[in-house]
Amino acid sequence: MAAGEFDIIRSLFAPLAAEKGAFALDDDAALLPAAEYVATKDMMIAGVHFRPDDPLDLVARKLLRVNLSDLAAKGARPVGYFLACAWPKTATRAQIARFAQGLAADQAQFRIALYGGDTTKHRAAGAPLTLSLTAFGAPARMGMIARKGAQIGDDIYVTGTIGDAGLGLAALEKRETFAKPARDYLVGRYRLPEPRLVMGGALAGHASAAIDVSDGLIADAGHIAAVGGVGIEIEAERLPLSPAAKDWLERQPAREEALARLAGFGDDYEILFAAPPNRRRSIDMAGKVSKTAVARIGQVVKGAGARLIGADGDEIPVESPGFDHFAG
Amino acid sequence: MAAGEFDIIRSLFAPLAAEKGAFALDDDAALLPAAEYVATKDMMIAGVHFRPDDPLDLVARKLLRVNLSDLAAKGARPVGYFLACAWPKTATRAQIARFAQGLAADQAQFRIALYGGDTTKHRAAGAPLTLSLTAFGAPARMGMIARKGAQIGDDIYVTGTIGDAGLGLAALEKRETFAKPARDYLVGRYRLPEPRLVMGGALAGHASAAIDVSDGLIADAGHIAAVGGVGIEIEAERLPLSPAAKDWLERQPAREEALARLAGFGDDYEILFAAPPNRRRSIDMAGKVSKTAVARIGQVVKGAGARLIGADGDEIPVESPGFDHFAG
Repeated sequence: MAAGEFDIIRSLFAPLAAEKGAFALDDDAALLPAAEYVATKDMMIAGVHFRPDDPLDLVARKLLRVNLSDLAAKGARPVGYFLACAWPKTATRAQIARFAQGLAADQAQFRIALYGGDTTKHRAAGAPLTLSLTAFGAPARMGMIARKGAQIGDDIYVTGTIGDAGLGLAALEKRETFAKPARDYLVGRYRLPEPRLVMGGALAGHASAAIDVSDGLIADAGHIAAVGGVGIEIEAERLPLSPAAKDWLERQPAREEALARLAGFGDDYEILFAAPPNRRRSIDMAGKVSKTAVARIGQVVKGAGARLIGADGDEIPVESPGFDHFAG
Repeated sequence: MAAGEFDIIRSLFAPLAAEKGAFALDDDAALLPAAEYVATKDMMIAGVHFRPDDPLDLVARKLLRVNLSDLAAKGARPVGYFLACAWPKTATRAQIARFAQGLAADQAQFRIALYGGDTTKHRAAGAPLTLSLTAFGAPARMGMIARKGAQIGDDIYVTGTIGDAGLGLAALEKRETFAKPARDYLVGRYRLPEPRLVMGGALAGHASAAIDVSDGLIADAGHIAAVGGVGIEIEAERLPLSPAAKDWLERQPAREEALARLAGFGDDYEILFAAPPNRRRSIDMAGKVSKTAVARIGQVVKGAGARLIGADGDEIPVESPGFDHFAG
């Protein structure tokens, strides 16, 4: 491979750089315009957070979107990002170019720009593509929606549909089979999440606490519960499901177990949030204005932890409560 | 290993978090106080940027310092950082704790705090510790010192001494041998660079362009030359050398070749900068006030690229002009 690091930065990444402040990636640092910022950093590793054979333009877009999803759940409007890539020893210029194309597509869609970063290469054979992205944005005028703040008596809501990404991953890993259009939809939900940015902005000032669903619905509800010192109950029959997920659910022998699996899957990148009951109309309005489906699925209660509740009022055990990279 | 991801974050990293804005690392995002920021991101990979057997507290401190050094060269005062770690499959809690101890030590020294990040683990056997840090700081009142801006006729300066880190690495890799005190000094310079923060702040308003020496003196001078559309000449006999490096130089059969090696080594993390001749007194003063040695080593000239010039006025070829991760 003849392409050098500086050529790769100049030809593939410099075109993605912010017009002001990023210095065409010719500097070691960027100058961010004076403002208050919300910032977040998420890492993705081949073989851990995505499949090594996932198309690299989609990997790039997912990396951006999981970070934008964090900003969305905080009610913030994204502005830009810093990117660090450690490529495998065997990476080719064409692969890096495809990755940069994915970034370019999503930059245009979300009106953000690259501010700086670092591009390097592993020396160890077999060391996987390792990506780290720091995204920053402007908080809503009403302020940042924190993870902490859910009050007893609040409603619990979630945007979009739940469980699709987990089913998409199961399809890719051949643990589940789906007919063609459903399969494409579910795999698409796994590979290319939709950060709920407009909805997040509309929730600022209404939501008492919020998080994006990355570890799994019940696991992430558990995070809100833990930092808020409250309990959360989610009604299994109220989970918003896509047609493809409903179809799958109908085919399962044990309905409650299947609902628990959907509530355990991660990677949906929907916004899970709490809001006082007197905000129900505002929440509906926020959903309509942002053209985002939103479902009221539970309540904040006394106690601790998050529980999935069946139609009979009993708790349904949910396995894999979040993805713990250090467990076991 | 029983320690889970959340426990590791809570017990090892949360104590490092900023009092305000980092939400005790309980949130996906941080809120940065309203200001103008200079930001930088550098990645470090075991086996590429540090030796796999380097003590992990020193690895952590070097990771912080290479980023602080970028801020120093921009004249910025560091405020905080985001950190992403992908640990090898086999990492133990004790190793991560030692890493966190290193961060704590340097946070205290440089008065900065952790604002957020991501802690995860590789699944692939042999995948190395991969670290990415995004540091941000406040620009000096006189503004950020850019890499671009060197003018023909400017003087070229460098802080501290040059070549020590490269000799330290050579000692660790048993390519060179040194007597005990010199060896410790040189290895220390490789493992624990000193970001020239006070000097950097004092240079704002005086330096026309600056960079920190990470790729190598000549390579980094080449970066300043390239973005400035100028040439840079550095006089080999003016390179500031430590007693240990002088000693080594005396022992080399070919003096010019040896000087070229020192000018080719990376990892010194000194500030290399340009300033107009009418600022000589201000530069001297900045060095005195910040207790930082500073040497005038060359000139900005017409042309392109950076050259090392011998006592006879001829160019001395410098090998390994910077570390290109994607070369060859």
